[in-house]
Amino acid sequence: MSKIRIGIVGYGNLGKGVELAIRSNPDTELAFVATRRDPSSVTLKTANIPVYQYNDLAAHQNDADVVIVCGGSATDLPKQTPELAKLFNVVDSFDTHARIPEHFANVDAAAKASGHVAMISVGWDPGMFSLARLYGNCILPDGKDYTFWGKGVSQGHSDAIRRVEGVQDGKQYTVPIESAMEAVRRGEQPELTTRQKHLRECYVVAKPGADLNKIEHDIKTMPNYFDEYDTVVHFISQEELNRDHAGIPHGGFVMRSGVSGENKEHKHLIEYSLKLDSNPEFTTNVLVAFARAVARFAKEQNTGCKTVFDVPPAYLSPLSGDELRAHML
Amino acid sequence: MSKIRIGIVGYGNLGKGVELAIRSNPDTELAFVATRRDPSSVTLKTANIPVYQYNDLAAHQNDADVVIVCGGSATDLPKQTPELAKLFNVVDSFDTHARIPEHFANVDAAAKASGHVAMISVGWDPGMFSLARLYGNCILPDGKDYTFWGKGVSQGHSDAIRRVEGVQDGKQYTVPIESAMEAVRRGEQPELTTRQKHLRECYVVAKPGADLNKIEHDIKTMPNYFDEYDTVVHFISQEELNRDHAGIPHGGFVMRSGVSGENKEHKHLIEYSLKLDSNPEFTTNVLVAFARAVARFAKEQNTGCKTVFDVPPAYLSPLSGDELRAHML
Repeated sequence: MSKIRIGIVGYGNLGKGVELAIRSNPDTELAFVATRRDPSSVTLKTANIPVYQYNDLAAHQNDADVVIVCGGSATDLPKQTPELAKLFNVVDSFDTHARIPEHFANVDAAAKASGHVAMISVGWDPGMFSLARLYGNCILPDGKDYTFWGKGVSQGHSDAIRRVEGVQDGKQYTVPIESAMEAVRRGEQPELTTRQKHLRECYVVAKPGADLNKIEHDIKTMPNYFDEYDTVVHFISQEELNRDHAGIPHGGFVMRSGVSGENKEHKHLIEYSLKLDSNPEFTTNVLVAFARAVARFAKEQNTGCKTVFDVPPAYLSPLSGDELRAHML
Repeated sequence: MSKIRIGIVGYGNLGKGVELAIRSNPDTELAFVATRRDPSSVTLKTANIPVYQYNDLAAHQNDADVVIVCGGSATDLPKQTPELAKLFNVVDSFDTHARIPEHFANVDAAAKASGHVAMISVGWDPGMFSLARLYGNCILPDGKDYTFWGKGVSQGHSDAIRRVEGVQDGKQYTVPIESAMEAVRRGEQPELTTRQKHLRECYVVAKPGADLNKIEHDIKTMPNYFDEYDTVVHFISQEELNRDHAGIPHGGFVMRSGVSGENKEHKHLIEYSLKLDSNPEFTTNVLVAFARAVARFAKEQNTGCKTVFDVPPAYLSPLSGDELRAHML
């Protein structure tokens, strides 16, 4: 069996995570890395792998079975994934939920026209959490969905803090509210407001002489990011931030609370949760598993845009159907 | 859109659960119930639905799009599912893990020869727990699996208690051991013995004048069922058993503990859990969702035996791909 040759486009946190994830999946191998920077400025963790310029990728169309697009989700992927789907079978982790239908249409057109397979929005949310929601909805149609995120670092909210006047550095944790989760687990099917579901906890390094009260007020009242939440602000030193808050953990919980029975008298709870030390490394592990499914679809010439909802779970595994039925069913 | 017509074969706990689950899935309808008993002795919860004799089913081959086989797993399904796959598209909940490959082969041969779709081992374990194990293994290849069952009623162990001399009635709960689960959640990847994972808790009604010490000893030392576990025996009255232990709750936890990173320094935990007031009603909700996938495979003429591993999750839903991407991804 020849290995699945994976190309990485974009060599930030995600690209580096894919490179490591390939090492844990012996049926895959790294084919190349591509970047929009000067390729000679990029040093890989893996020996003897070529680094190409993004604009030269057409010349390397036959060098990878699947390309994992590791650009920034908000601005890079809407452009890069359709572009790359003209040349390769691709996977991305596009995560702007509201714009998924538009991204799907663009990528689907490019992939179908060129005869490639393209899988979008792969990761944990969207991705594994979406699967948990879908399975939960289908199995407990009389029910209600709950998604809680955290405890974990929100990059967008951390960036927002750092833009506040007088702030030198900062990190924001999204914290799910335990009492709300417990109410769901008891089968109460509560209606929860934004404020009742998550707390926002900020660790902030102020610039010398900055007005701490004003910083705290500016954070807590920031529209969209913080104003609908209870927010806690801790002022700490740069040393403390570097020492205690360097990681990028995340996680969360998808719950489906439902009922069955002649009088809906039986309660059921399905709960799917993740506790991740490294958000990008977990995401890239998911990407590599779904790259395996992309290679499988490509062999079947089942082209066009796909999502995690379209993938038979067996396609994610290097094991045969016989092995899966004997050992995992 | 015409509804998916579902036939039920076997009208015990599972058959009755399917009948109720159909009410919660408006794109499905009950076509008939079949039984090996005298059909006139069976009273359904649903009006105007025919009850057929099992042996007469060949005459009703065109009356159902999918038949859900609700016989006993150990003895009925190995015979009935291949028989019925000659006449219908079928789903069963065959749950003897060790015999799945053999059952798969028998059902596959019958389904392929007659051009039907047959899905086996659908439920929660095997079923949803198998899916959790498969997804977890594919996403965290550097890791370890843990399955804990309970707290819930084990029918097999309850039957075993009731066969003990001097026992009038009894019920056995399988209880997962919290400290073991916590060790897994901390990422310790412990090696756990049978005894360290589950406790067996028995509620026993003794016959008048029976030797309680002997009953307790006979239960605790029973090979296969209890001897490898720590077992707790509570003697209670028949009234207490009827009042406090009438339900058939169950549930459990599938955990995948894995690592990533250049030096495997990042720990990740995936946890999937179920808390079910009614084991059979939850199982039948799963069966009806997968019956929808069977109908879809049948339309595609994708025949033969399938398991939950072969089903694209979107096939479980009555919603379109567009709707799923817009609202659930």
